[in-house]
Parts: sequence; C-alpha cells; structure tokens
Amino acid sequence: MIIALKPGVSKEEIAKLIADLEVLGVKVDSSQGASQVVLGLVGDTTVINDDALRANRFVDRVIRVQEPYKRANRLFHPLDTVLEFQSNGKSAKIGGGNFAVIAGPCSVESREQLVSIAADVKKSGAAFLRGGAFKPRTSPYSFQGMGCEGIDLLVEAKKATGLPIVTEVMEISQIKLFDEVDIIQVGARNMQNFNLLKELGRIKKPILLKRGMASTMTELLMAAEYVMAGGNSQIVLCERGIRGFDNFTRNILDIAIIPALKKKTHLPVIVDPSHATGLSWMVPTMSKAAIAAGADGIIVEVHNDPEHALCDGEQSLTPELFDNLMNTLRKYAALEEKVI
Amino acid sequence: MIIALKPGVSKEEIAKLIADLEVLGVKVDSSQGASQVVLGLVGDTTVINDDALRANRFVDRVIRVQEPYKRANRLFHPLDTVLEFQSNGKSAKIGGGNFAVIAGPCSVESREQLVSIAADVKKSGAAFLRGGAFKPRTSPYSFQGMGCEGIDLLVEAKKATGLPIVTEVMEISQIKLFDEVDIIQVGARNMQNFNLLKELGRIKKPILLKRGMASTMTELLMAAEYVMAGGNSQIVLCERGIRGFDNFTRNILDIAIIPALKKKTHLPVIVDPSHATGLSWMVPTMSKAAIAAGADGIIVEVHNDPEHALCDGEQSLTPELFDNLMNTLRKYAALEEKVI
Amino acid sequence: MIIALKPGVSKEEIAKLIADLEVLGVKVDSSQGASQVVLGLVGDTTVINDDALRANRFVDRVIRVQEPYKRANRLFHPLDTVLEFQSNGKSAKIGGGNFAVIAGPCSVESREQLVSIAADVKKSGAAFLRGGAFKPRTSPYSFQGMGCEGIDLLVEAKKATGLPIVTEVMEISQIKLFDEVDIIQVGARNMQNFNLLKELGRIKKPILLKRGMASTMTELLMAAEYVMAGGNSQIVLCERGIRGFDNFTRNILDIAIIPALKKKTHLPVIVDPSHATGLSWMVPTMSKAAIAAGADGIIVEVHNDPEHALCDGEQSLTPELFDNLMNTLRKYAALEEKVI
Amino acid sequence: MIIALKPGVSKEEIAKLIADLEVLGVKVDSSQGASQVVLGLVGDTTVINDDALRANRFVDRVIRVQEPYKRANRLFHPLDTVLEFQSNGKSAKIGGGNFAVIAGPCSVESREQLVSIAADVKKSGAAFLRGGAFKPRTSPYSFQGMGCEGIDLLVEAKKATGLPIVTEVMEISQIKLFDEVDIIQVGARNMQNFNLLKELGRIKKPILLKRGMASTMTELLMAAEYVMAGGNSQIVLCERGIRGFDNFTRNILDIAIIPALKKKTHLPVIVDPSHATGLSWMVPTMSKAAIAAGADGIIVEVHNDPEHALCDGEQSLTPELFDNLMNTLRKYAALEEKVI
Repeated sequence: MIIALKPGVSKEEIAKLIADLEVLGVKVDSSQGASQVVLGLVGDTTVINDDALRANRFVDRVIRVQEPYKRANRLFHPLDTVLEFQSNGKSAKIGGGNFAVIAGPCSVESREQLVSIAADVKKSGAAFLRGGAFKPRTSPYSFQGMGCEGIDLLVEAKKATGLPIVTEVMEISQIKLFDEVDIIQVGARNMQNFNLLKELGRIKKPILLKRGMASTMTELLMAAEYVMAGGNSQIVLCERGIRGFDNFTRNILDIAIIPALKKKTHLPVIVDPSHATGLSWMVPTMSKAAIAAGADGIIVEVHNDPEHALCDGEQSLTPELFDNLMNTLRKYAALEEKVI
Repeated sequence: MIIALKPGVSKEEIAKLIADLEVLGVKVDSSQGASQVVLGLVGDTTVINDDALRANRFVDRVIRVQEPYKRANRLFHPLDTVLEFQSNGKSAKIGGGNFAVIAGPCSVESREQLVSIAADVKKSGAAFLRGGAFKPRTSPYSFQGMGCEGIDLLVEAKKATGLPIVTEVMEISQIKLFDEVDIIQVGARNMQNFNLLKELGRIKKPILLKRGMASTMTELLMAAEYVMAGGNSQIVLCERGIRGFDNFTRNILDIAIIPALKKKTHLPVIVDPSHATGLSWMVPTMSKAAIAAGADGIIVEVHNDPEHALCDGEQSLTPELFDNLMNTLRKYAALEEKVI
Repeated sequence: MIIALKPGVSKEEIAKLIADLEVLGVKVDSSQGASQVVLGLVGDTTVINDDALRANRFVDRVIRVQEPYKRANRLFHPLDTVLEFQSNGKSAKIGGGNFAVIAGPCSVESREQLVSIAADVKKSGAAFLRGGAFKPRTSPYSFQGMGCEGIDLLVEAKKATGLPIVTEVMEISQIKLFDEVDIIQVGARNMQNFNLLKELGRIKKPILLKRGMASTMTELLMAAEYVMAGGNSQIVLCERGIRGFDNFTRNILDIAIIPALKKKTHLPVIVDPSHATGLSWMVPTMSKAAIAAGADGIIVEVHNDPEHALCDGEQSLTPELFDNLMNTLRKYAALEEKVI
Repeated sequence: MIIALKPGVSKEEIAKLIADLEVLGVKVDSSQGASQVVLGLVGDTTVINDDALRANRFVDRVIRVQEPYKRANRLFHPLDTVLEFQSNGKSAKIGGGNFAVIAGPCSVESREQLVSIAADVKKSGAAFLRGGAFKPRTSPYSFQGMGCEGIDLLVEAKKATGLPIVTEVMEISQIKLFDEVDIIQVGARNMQNFNLLKELGRIKKPILLKRGMASTMTELLMAAEYVMAGGNSQIVLCERGIRGFDNFTRNILDIAIIPALKKKTHLPVIVDPSHATGLSWMVPTMSKAAIAAGADGIIVEVHNDPEHALCDGEQSLTPELFDNLMNTLRKYAALEEKVI
C-alpha cells in the first residue's frame, strides 16, 4: 500500500502519521520524492481504512498494490474451479477445459413452449436449460414472468429432459423456491444486491453471477467475494455486456474481460451473447468470439417463435439457428481443445 | 409509435402486419419512403409488445414517440409534487419552490457521534438528518453498518432534535424496521431492485430514490413508476453521479439531469454532491451548482471527525464547513427565490 | 423522416409547417396520435436541415429513418470492397474472404530495428509491414517519432522484404511524403480531422481509418464518407478499442462492431488488438476473437525488444510470440474459410 | 514513481532492475510486501520510459505519483493566468476573478446575420463575439462554414462593435488567416491534433482549447502543455460536455471538472453550455451552474432566427433570451464576487 503525501507536510506530521499506522501492525517505509514524501506500507494492510486515510488532510493519494479480493484470487488459489453436474445421465462441467452451453427461452411462458424448446436445445447438444421465471423488467407494465409456476415448469422440463436448470432469483424470500434448481442466476441489476449475495453465500448451490451494467472487473470479483465469504465457492461469472455510448447493440460485449478474469481468478467465466447484443443475428458470431477468447461457456436465448415471445424476442435464436450454432461451436471447441 | 420496415418487404406481408396490429386496437398509417415503408401507429400503443415486433423479420426499427412512464409524467400531472414534513416544530417541504437540506454522517457509528453531528447540522439549519444504518459496501470485509441499532440511534436523534430522518433500506425484510423513519432511501445499486420497489409502492412513506450508476433518465423514471404503480407517489429523485471514464471525481455529477427531470416529471429532484464527487472540498461548489441548476435540495455528508470516519471520510464535510455551506446556500436560495 | 410535434400545436401551425416542408419537395403525411401529431416525410429528405427543425418551437423530436451515409452504405453497394496489393511477389487482399495481417513495430526506431522486425514478420507470414514515423503522443515530452527519416526506413524495408507498408499521417502537409507508402493510416485522434479526410479523398491511395475513442459507428462511417465523397473509395475501417470506465485494459475492444459494420457497409473491417488492450499477453486471444467475429484482418505490434521499445512496449509481441499467433490464426482462418 | 513487481521475482533480477534504473540517475528504495516487492523511485523520473518498464516481464504495475504536466501545473505556477483584451474601449479579462461572456452565432452565415447578432450581444453585455467560419461537421453533406469570407465578416463585426472575436481553426494552413482574430479556438475533435497544437505554440495569440469528447482531465492539460511547451502560455480551457450513455442532452456537462481544473492548473476555465446540452432551453440554467461552480466564463450560441440557422439552431438562444441570461448572470457574478 502506497500513500503519497501532499507537498509541504512537516517532518513532525509525517512522523505522527507513521506512528499511527505502525500501531496497526504494518511497517512503514518513507521516501522523499522530488516534491512530496511517499510512504510504503508493508504487512497486513487489510486493517487500514482507506477512506479515513484519504480524508487525512496531509494525504494526496492512497494506492493499493494488492487486489482486495482473496477467495476469488488466483494468486492464492491457482487451480481452476470446476463445477460438475449430471446432464442427461452424463457428467457436465463448467470450468477447467470444458465449454458449457446453457440455452433456453428468455422467459418461461407456458408448458408447451418450455417443453418444446427444452427438447430442441437438448437435441442440439445444450447441456443446461435456462428460462426466466422471475423477470427483472424496466417497466412495471411489462410481463413480469410466471413466478413460482415458471419454476415448477422448469423443474418439470428438467425431469423430462435430464438437463440441469438455470433460473434467476430476484430477492431473498424467493431462494426457498429454488431447491430443485441447479444453478441460481443473479442478474446484472442485482450484482451489488449485497444482502442477496450474503444469503446466497449460506446455501450450497452454484451461483451464476452476472456482471453489472457499469461494474468494474474488481467490483464483479468483490461481488463473488461476498458469496464466497459466506462459504459458497461454486460461482460462475458471466459477462453480459456493459453500457456504452452507442446503440447499434443493446450493450457492449467486453470481450477482453474473459482473459482478464481468467488471469485474476480461478472461477469459470461464461458469456451471454444474447443480452450483450440484443440482436439474434449477432449471437452466433459473438458466441464464436467468446470461445475464441477463452470463455468457459455461453448462456444463450432460444425461442421457438421469437416474433411472439413475451420478452426479448429480438435477441432469441430459433431452434434451427441454435442447432447451426452448436455445430459451429463444436469445431471451435476442437480447435481450443475444449470439451463441449 | 413508428415502425420502419426493411427494404423490399412485399405488399402482402405489409398488409398482414398491419392487420395483426389493428387487431390490437390501434390504427396504422403506412407511408412509402425512398427505400422502405414506414408505419405510424395511433391509439393506445401500450398494448404493443416492442420486443416481439423487433424480432419480426420484416421490421427494421421500432421507435416509441411517447414516454413509457405515466404516473411520473409531468404531461399528465403538470403540478409539482410537494412533500411536507414537520422539522423541529416547523413545516419542512421538498419540492415546489423549497430547497431541502438533508445532512448527517455517511454511517451511524455511535450515539455520541450521531448526537453531536445531529445537533451541529440542526444548528446550521439542515431540515433533515441523514445517516446510514445498513451500508452497501463494495467489499464484504468493510464495515457494513450498525444495522437495527443504527436505526434506533437515528430515532433517538430524531426525538432529540426534532429533525425528520432519512436512511437507506437494502432489502424487503428490513422495511418493517423503518416505521419511525421519515424518508426511506433506495440506493443507487438498488434502483432496479424491482421487488424492493414494488414493496415500497405498498407503503405510505416518502421514498428517496437514487439514480443508478449507469441508469438513463428514463430508467430512473421507470423505477419511480414501479413505486407509483403500487400506489405510493411520495418520491424524491436523487442525482448522485454516474460512472465515467475519468477518475478525478468518484463519479460524474450529471448536472443537466436536474432541468431535464424537472421538465419531464412533477417529482422533486435533489442532488448528492458527496457521493457524486467523493471529495469533501468539492461539495460546497457542487452544492451551489445544484441549486443554480434548479435542484429542490441536497443530501450531504457531515462528520465531526472525517479522518476517523468508518466510511467515506474523504467526502464528508466538517460541521464548520457545513455551516459555511449553509450560509452560502441561503444567498443562492434568495437569488433563486427558494425557501431554504 | 419522422417529426413528432409537441402536444397542443394548433391546426393552423401544423398546416403551415407542412407547407414549409412540402416547398422543399418532400411529401408529408400527418397522423394524430394520442397526445401529439406525428408527421412522416417521404422523398429526398437530405434537403431538410435537422438542426433548424429541432429548433422549431412546435417540434418535439426529429427521427431519421434512413442512414446518413450513402457511398459507404451496403444498401446501395451490396458487394464487398476488396483492396488488392502486391506482397512479396504475390497478391495480398483486404476484404472479401481474405484475412490480412499487418505487423511491425509501434514506432520506427532505427534501420537495424526495422530490418530485423520486418524480416521476422515476413517469415512468419505477415502480408503487410506497419511502423510509425509520425507518432501522436499524449505528452509533448515523449518520443514523437523519427518523422521523414522513419518514412525513408519504411520504404527501404519495403524494398528489402517486398511487403507493402502502412504508416500514419498526422497532417495534410505530410501527405506528399507518403508517395511510396501503400496504405495511409488515419489515427483514432484524427478520425474527425475533417480537413485531413477531405484531402485524403483527393488522392488515389488506400486509407486505413481508425475509429475514434468515443466515436459511434455512424460517425466512423461518416468519416469514411468524407473520404469517399472526395472520390477515394479505398478505405479499410479499423476498430481499435473505445474508452470505458474500467482500466484493466487500455480501451474496450468493441468486438460487436465487426458484424455490425459488415452489415452496414461494404468496406473491409480490421482490428487492432494491440491498442485495444494495451497488453501484449492479450493480443493473441483478442486476435482469435477478431477473426471469429468476422474481421477482415488485424494490425498488430511486434517488437524485437519490447522492454526497450521507445513506445508502447507493453503491448508489443516478440517475433516468437507473433510466429505462434500466425500459426494459430491459420487454423482459425481455415475454419472461417478465409485466405490468410 | 512506484513500481510493483510480480510475485516471485528473484533477488538477482531485482538487483539488476534497480541497477538499470539507478544508471538513469534516480534513487530506488525497495520494500518487501506481503506477496511482492515494491520499488519507490526518487529523483527526476521524467527520464524513465513507462511503456518500456510496463513491458518488463518482472513488472506488475507502474504508478506515477507526480502529474505529467509542468507548465500548466498550479503546483509550480500558483498564480492565476489572466488574459487581457480591449473590448469596446474597455479592458476585458479572462481568468483571475473575472467572468467572461463570449456570445454569437454557431456559424457566420451572412453580413446581415452577423452584424445584427453582434450588435445584440454587445448591447446585452457580452465582452467577446464568437462565430464559426470553418465548421467541423459530422457529415460531408452538411454546411461546412463560409471559410475565409466568414473570417472577413467577423473582422468587420469586430471593427463595427469593438468586440474581440473568437473563431475556430481546423488546420495549420488556416492559421495565417487568423491575424486579426483575438482568440483562436481549437475544437473538441482537434484537442489531440498534436501538430496543430505545436504550431499554435509558436504564435503569440490566445488559444481557446476545448476538451475532447472522451478526454480525461490529464489529457486536456497535456494538450495545453503541447501549446505551452512551444512558448505560448495564453490558453483558456473549455469544458463542452463529454460523451455519455444517455441522450437527453447531446453530451454530459462535466461540471466538476471546473473546480478540479482550477485546483490543478493556473489557466482559466470556461464552459460551453450550448454544445454541452444541445438544447437552448437548458443554456441559461447550465450557465448559472457554471458560474456557481467557479467557471471563469461561458461561450454561448446566440442566433437571431434559430429556426432557420444553418447549424445547431436547436441549441441557440435568441437575443432576447440572451439578454435575460446576462441579467441573471450579473446577479450570480455579484454573489461570486466576479467582474462580469
């Protein structure tokens, strides 16, 4: 940890500040720069309150050299985290050389719709079924999802197809409904819903954590750290596009966060090309880019009738297009030596 | 509502699309442009599912002319919403020609701290006391607030000073603890926590709704609409800075959203200069800019000992600096003909 | 073109506005919406001055349905533009099913450096040699490039290797020095240097036009349109990363602009993974993502001694790493059925 | 300057790196942190090549403690730079307790237009006349300005009114036409047109330097440093809005950069509320915010007939509205104790 002091601080003030810091158990080295003194702190600097330090009238800047996350940090946990599931009687993994494809409708709309899509994506080779039961919608007047009934239909579809299911939780009181859900998704808007994260840290179920629309990589990892600090380390991170200044896509797919995350953390990283672009015709291209960039999987929207979908039809693939995509991804997976 | 079709759609397809739309009760005008046909929809277009329409293979673009919010829309409710409170035996208003000053510590830390700051801000002329009991922190290892005990201390401070209190709710199960709280704050990270918003729509208590870090003006108004759709129209909107590409301030204070919101909605609009900049020395300047730009108030952090604050010390004013700020704001309020 | 009027405009005012517009030769359809009148303009709307219209006190919004670019628009020029060069005695193309690799140092530093790198990238299979002679640097105190001497060294390297050369022009008066340069690069900071673009429209030489740091896709295409309006249609567009709110990479590689541009324009689109990320270890991964996303090539920095490079060493590949990258790209090109 | 090494670098490698750095004349302090070694460099670190250092395979991060600008830095030049002009027979200053109002049309369109507006803004109290002769337009098909003839008309208007004139230069070859221009404006798109900046450093005429659309504060100051390094220190900085993710205003007025710049530099800082918002009805409000935030002036667009302006009519004030604005600003200037 580095503390740059303002120009002109007296020797006495500096000595006092160093003494205050050393009381906390860290060692402080002081260097006289051209126009200001710089302090280097060595030891367990997690005890230092950055905010208070920045408020100190003699302090110009506070710079942390070490990352603030620990459990999510690859530095301390070099091996890839790999999550294992049973999918249609076989093992399906996320992380560690596998490429996981999670597919299904944006929203569960009816038994017929879900059964049909689930059968289709299974046939094409998806290992996981997605579908929204509780839907975060910008407008209170838009379809809000089928709720509990949607969860029930997903569980039915799981039994029928053998595919593990992924669906989104929106608040703590809903968690008890997710007993038979295999992966609980936390949406972008809830990435910093810290109470929800804490609660999810107390259960033993994989969490799919989506990056917030304007979240830094560190904030995403700190959100994962909230869950991990509670004891749950089964986390899959998901890049789903960030907010940008142009609107030719709904969001900007920040493709470089994939290798960046793979370097910083041992957790698996997948991509949501459907929300990232909002345009179904771009989904296959962005899925290829994701696997080429090192992603551990994708979560993709498939709808049997996008023109009548209750939600996000514009970004949903038809089952035929999804089937084509799977064929393409198998070739890319071979090139990347990944199990799909 | 305008629908631009792709070039080359056949007359039959267009006729079919128009028929599908008119079944929903809207009237459709068709114009042949230079290279594409444009449809104009007249009537109650809220029945139209934009997403599905965008997924239609003949559709190029869908443009809504009308704003998607109704209850928050000044077009339908031209008069300013004014919230009224009792503060220290007098009426204190937010909205409609009043300038409300909400001041207090970032976090409630102890009875002594809160009592001392509350007395100070009251003496200087603040009409409301703020203080965080439940704190949204990026790191799970940072101080998370005093919780219920913090609420109790705020209620004590309210009784001692007569100032109405403002504090943040982080999840639904906490709402029951806010009975004696005068204004419930929804933080930036929860602006699109739709379940929380719906629940707050069912209670009869003013809500201070902060703009999310990357939220558009429309999204902020739609968040307010969630609360209003439930029956609670006592909402104060708050600009607290948006995420930007530079870091000389913590966030970018989007000053122009003040007049923009005042034009689009009848709800009061206040500014949080402390979080917007993260720098206490900028708070007075940004507070002046806020009142000059037409804000209905500010919410500002004051701490008796910023260098030892458990949270956000860097952005807190001392009581002395806050007292100076109040003196300045009184002059600006006179110029703007606002009651402070 | 759609014009939404403000609510409450009188019939007379509307009739007058329509008459004013029809004088310009367009046909105007008027629709009465729920709360406002909407005008649809048909015909050659390029004669309409949007700015003036937006300033009209009765106008709420002006929406253009058609794209403002013509020469760059694939709608009017469906076939891919393909640029052809002689490289080392063979044909080397950019666009239309080819994958062009442009490689070389950030800056030309000396004859030895350039000769060595040029030989290396040629051996690995690059078809074009890049190198900066005039360097846009944030600081006036940084190395500004070798200037004319740098151009001379590039021309020497071209003669020695047979590779066509790409280098950046920074102002109009330099153009005359670029006679033997094969592709003239316009940097991100000059994307809207309109005088330079106009001048480049008057010459007969391929232009590599980099997207500005905060430019929309439409602005990039309008910049190309400036060059094309002057008569020069040999343009290669380049995505090089846009400015974002995080700093784990220097910029954000906006990977989705590749398919978006390929749809909107017939011009080739390449990617600069070196500037987009600023990190050499990410360059191979981002290059794979680029080809997977449909790019027509990459422009990549290679340096024989990155630790002593005068500029951007952090983002330069060594010749060995570049050779590995070429081997990988050949496999991807085979999958994408592109000629590399 | 701080260099954090990667974990696990050997003592020999560290010693070698320190030796390499000390050869350059700096002193290096080394601290052993919890998981990595941190080097602190003391002395003239401007000799260090950051890029090369970041490319070093043992280096994790390089952090500069000192600002990279010198001539523009208030640390070394504590006193405000004040520019003085003759306006209508009186002294008109920019900087140091003065509030300069620069007003006029976006573009010079004709003698009649300019004469009329110049007389109006003079009567209302503007001290400077603005008007564009060379216009940077996104589209090659839009009005590009009157060019030299526009300059001539501005000079005529200057003679007629006595107001100093401000107009934009777009490329080096135009500079010779600006002999009778009082302040040469560099537009946002040219903020990093380094050749132009260098050339403007060689002349003795005040420069109005607009912040680029996505430029950091440091980049703006480095652009000023380019001019100052050439010997011209008469620079006025101008905040004109940055690119954001919403579109209710054309750009985001970054109001906090005013106090931030005033702290970091001695150069005057003005605001362009017309381009920042793109909406004439917001200009008065944003002008008040600017003066409240400490700006040294504004540059504002005034047009006698905004509905027929050839450029940016939507953001132009009428002379009547400008007159009202001046009356308001005089009250604010009195409060801020500024000479207007």
